[in-house]
Amino acid sequence: MKSHTAYLEFNTEKIQEFILITDRVEQEIRKSGVKEGLILVNPMHITSAVYVNDAESGLIQDFQEWLEKLAPSGLNYKHHQTGEDNADAHLKRQLMGHQVTMAITNGSLDLGPWEQIYYAEFDGQRKKRVLIKIIGE
Amino acid sequence: MKSHTAYLEFNTEKIQEFILITDRVEQEIRKSGVKEGLILVNPMHITSAVYVNDAESGLIQDFQEWLEKLAPSGLNYKHHQTGEDNADAHLKRQLMGHQVTMAITNGSLDLGPWEQIYYAEFDGQRKKRVLIKIIGE
Amino acid sequence: MKSHTAYLEFNTEKIQEFILITDRVEQEIRKSGVKEGLILVNPMHITSAVYVNDAESGLIQDFQEWLEKLAPSGLNYKHHQTGEDNADAHLKRQLMGHQVTMAITNGSLDLGPWEQIYYAEFDGQRKKRVLIKIIGE
Repeated sequence: MKSHTAYLEFNTEKIQEFILITDRVEQEIRKSGVKEGLILVNPMHITSAVYVNDAESGLIQDFQEWLEKLAPSGLNYKHHQTGEDNADAHLKRQLMGHQVTMAITNGSLDLGPWEQIYYAEFDGQRKKRVLIKIIGE
Repeated sequence: MKSHTAYLEFNTEKIQEFILITDRVEQEIRKSGVKEGLILVNPMHITSAVYVNDAESGLIQDFQEWLEKLAPSGLNYKHHQTGEDNADAHLKRQLMGHQVTMAITNGSLDLGPWEQIYYAEFDGQRKKRVLIKIIGE
Repeated sequence: MKSHTAYLEFNTEKIQEFILITDRVEQEIRKSGVKEGLILVNPMHITSAVYVNDAESGLIQDFQEWLEKLAPSGLNYKHHQTGEDNADAHLKRQLMGHQVTMAITNGSLDLGPWEQIYYAEFDGQRKKRVLIKIIGE
C-alpha cells in the first residue's frame, strides 16, 4: 500500500470565495504514484468546505445566494458571544457537505463529465489549509 | 491491497426518482473479493446524490417535499442564463450530502439495522452513472 | 494493509445531544497500529450524524436552533403514518452531512487547529452505535 499526504494553502482576498482545485488535486495524485485508490480532500478549518459540482460562474453565484438565505450572516448567534462573528460560516460549510472522498482509477481522478472539485471559503482573508490524503497502490 | 471499480447505470423515467441500491452495492463487494475495506459510492453527475437513510416510502416523499421547500425549482437562477433549467437539482444534491463511504467487514457492507443506500436523481430522463470504488484486502 | 473495526455505543439521556468523540476516535487509531491511512466514522442509525466542527457550546446551540428551523419537528410528515414521530431527525442528520472520513498521519488524526469530531443524536434515549473503520498501514 502506498500513501501520500499534502496540504494546499489558501489565503483568499475576499471573505467568501469559491476556488476550483481539481488540477491541484490531480497533481498530488501524480506525485503519489497511486494507480488505484481513494483520495480524501478535507478542509482543515471549520468555516470552509470542499465540494464537487459544476464549474459554472452563474451556479456559483446561485450557491452563494442560496447559502446566505438558508444560513444568514449577521444574526444574533450564540457563537458570537465568544467574540467571533462567523457562525454563519460554520453553518454554510455543513450545508455544502464539508469534504469529499474521490476515486483514483488508472492513476487519475475518476470523474464524470462535469464533476469538478471546489474549495469554498466562507471566512477568508486568513491562512487556511486543505488536507489531501491518498491511499492505494 | 485489492481494488475494484464498477459503474452503475441509471436512466430514470421521471425527472426525480429515489432508487434503493444497497443490493447492487453489495454485489460489487462480492465481486471484489474484499473482506475488510472501504467502499465509496459516488454519483458521477452533479444533479444527483447517493445517501444513506430509511427504505420507507413516506419518508422518501418527506425528503422530496422538504428538498423542494429548501431548494425550489422554477426560480430565476443565474445558472439558467446558460440555457439550463436545473439549478435546483444542483442545490438539492448538496443538501443530501452527495456521496457516501461505507465500511466492508467480513466481506459485506457493515450496516446498522435500518441503513440503506439510495441513489437520488434530481434531473433524470437521461443516462447517469454511479461510481463504486472498493479498496481493502 | 492493516484494518481495524470498532463500534462506539451511545444511549443519550436527552432526545437530542451533541457529544464530542475526538478522543474515542483517536484511541481506536492507536489500537489499530495504523500510521498512514483513512478512518471512516459513520453512525449506524439513520437519525444521527457524525460531523466535524467547533467544540464551542454556543455554536452547538446555534446548530440545534438552525436545524430546528430548517427541519422542524412536529410537522405532519408522511413518515409518521407508520407510527414513527421522528421524521425531522432523519432530515436533520442529512443536513449535517451524516458521516466523515478523516486522515491518519504519523499514527494520529491529521486535524486542523479547531477540527473536532462530534456525534449528533437527534432521536436518542435508546441504544445507538457508531462504526469506526480504519484502513492503512
